[in-house]
Amino acid sequence: MSIEELVDGVLAGRRRHLAKLIALIENEDPAAAEALSLLYRHTGRAHIVGITGPPGSGKSTIVTRMTSEYRKRGRTVGIVAVDPSSPFTGGALLGDRIRMQEHSLDDGVFVRSMGTRGHLGGIARATSDVVRAIDASGKDIIIVETVGAGQSEVEIIDIAHTVVVTDVPGSGDDIQAIKAGIMEIADIFVVNKKDLPGADKKAAEINTMLDLDQNMGQWRPPVLLTNGRTGEGIPELVDKIDEHMVYLRESGALEEKGLQRSRDELHQIMEYRLTQELLSRLQGRPEYEEAIRKIAKRDDDPYTVAQRLIAEFLAGFSRQV
Amino acid sequence: MSIEELVDGVLAGRRRHLAKLIALIENEDPAAAEALSLLYRHTGRAHIVGITGPPGSGKSTIVTRMTSEYRKRGRTVGIVAVDPSSPFTGGALLGDRIRMQEHSLDDGVFVRSMGTRGHLGGIARATSDVVRAIDASGKDIIIVETVGAGQSEVEIIDIAHTVVVTDVPGSGDDIQAIKAGIMEIADIFVVNKKDLPGADKKAAEINTMLDLDQNMGQWRPPVLLTNGRTGEGIPELVDKIDEHMVYLRESGALEEKGLQRSRDELHQIMEYRLTQELLSRLQGRPEYEEAIRKIAKRDDDPYTVAQRLIAEFLAGFSRQV
Repeated sequence: MSIEELVDGVLAGRRRHLAKLIALIENEDPAAAEALSLLYRHTGRAHIVGITGPPGSGKSTIVTRMTSEYRKRGRTVGIVAVDPSSPFTGGALLGDRIRMQEHSLDDGVFVRSMGTRGHLGGIARATSDVVRAIDASGKDIIIVETVGAGQSEVEIIDIAHTVVVTDVPGSGDDIQAIKAGIMEIADIFVVNKKDLPGADKKAAEINTMLDLDQNMGQWRPPVLLTNGRTGEGIPELVDKIDEHMVYLRESGALEEKGLQRSRDELHQIMEYRLTQELLSRLQGRPEYEEAIRKIAKRDDDPYTVAQRLIAEFLAGFSRQV
Repeated sequence: MSIEELVDGVLAGRRRHLAKLIALIENEDPAAAEALSLLYRHTGRAHIVGITGPPGSGKSTIVTRMTSEYRKRGRTVGIVAVDPSSPFTGGALLGDRIRMQEHSLDDGVFVRSMGTRGHLGGIARATSDVVRAIDASGKDIIIVETVGAGQSEVEIIDIAHTVVVTDVPGSGDDIQAIKAGIMEIADIFVVNKKDLPGADKKAAEINTMLDLDQNMGQWRPPVLLTNGRTGEGIPELVDKIDEHMVYLRESGALEEKGLQRSRDELHQIMEYRLTQELLSRLQGRPEYEEAIRKIAKRDDDPYTVAQRLIAEFLAGFSRQV
């Protein structure tokens, strides 16, 4: 398949082409960057919704219910489930096939699970590119689900327009600390499993924390009660997500987020490519391997060596003239 | 304080100088890199022990108990508690002062908590540098404790010689997936809270998973039962950690790890400095801001812009001749 065919297929919303592009992204194939570069102008239309929260808070169930609700409303949905729990196997544990079975025959829904493949930063870049690819394919809503508790939340705020944070009644004090970090990125709180005792108490606690928040902007995150199993509260959640987009548009925050996102992304791409350029010149050369051995033996230090190699790399370009 | 005074103070094991250097590292002060560069040759002597596991598995208690045991054996201890839960406040929630009170007057123990300060990669770099600083100050054992579940485990394996993974009886199916990822990095398993029902069952489960592991090397991770509250099992844990270092030395794995670590570190430092060099030339320039606006408006794409800016950056060096 040529790049042009691939790009045309993705733009036409063809599942096979989109899956092919995502495979290229995951394999860091240079063709992926080329295709994404051509697709970029056709992106920016989807509403990207992040959903995060501690393990066991019912994120997957909520996402499945949200998808049904969006489909009822005639909107198409892409789902990216990021699972950083298995960095070493390279395979996502939540297989695409076992999730979302009820939507498996619906062309208006595209689901993809992603593992982290072992290197930090890699997951952020790949997720961002996969979201972009689905965006270009014309999906109205893209839900990015991350397994909670950790640095993954930091990334979701970079990617998503709207961040939904889930919790459940009675989650212990141990994760209180985690919640403090998550609080600040939530646009909407969901207390799931509302049938369990303590749901109202949990919602009240979150509202109290919000009352104490000095840095809150014009948007006060609503706290919703849901039951992912029965679907209760899901239409209200979808309504609130829509409302948040209206707020982002009207307040100018959407434009601001877009600029920040473009800046971050340009920065990331430059960092990656510049480093690749440098490493491609160093790796495998005997002097480079010798420098690493000297560092390991403490005959030299990595700071000084880095400085020297960078200077040599940059000087190499002046010698080329 | 001059860099020389700082370096001399750290080498002499003075707490005040070490704290000062760590503050410089956290603030990304250029003086930190200079000091670390001078200190580098005096590092590599500490045994670095990572400890990770789900929230509530008693990591902090185990670390406190381990510290007492090491002190009994006449060894000095540094502790770095990485808390990625509060990326936005910049402050660590587990304050140094409330932790380890029993060791607060002991010069043979140095404790430091670290928050993540919001950017991925930053925490990895800072933690690595802080560990190095403590190593140079002469501590025999450095324990790096991370709040579990997420990408932080991936980093701990890069830093630590020995990785201890903690768990507790009866932790639910929800985190089973997380454990699958952690399994592969553990050198020693600890089932803490052994007084709770199900402790033996949990240990047996872990042993069964280990039996199924096809990729295991010569070291089979032992599964220990502890009670952090009473201290039961802690001397055995410290013994096993020592045994693991003997294994690493005798098998050649220590040397291999050292080379890999040097390679990764050199790579990271180069990536960081090269990108800083590029950004320092771009940021604030009107053409750069205009390029970002065009990307946000989809009049241009970040891949093409990145390519152009990198080419201009590198060409700048040839023009300088």
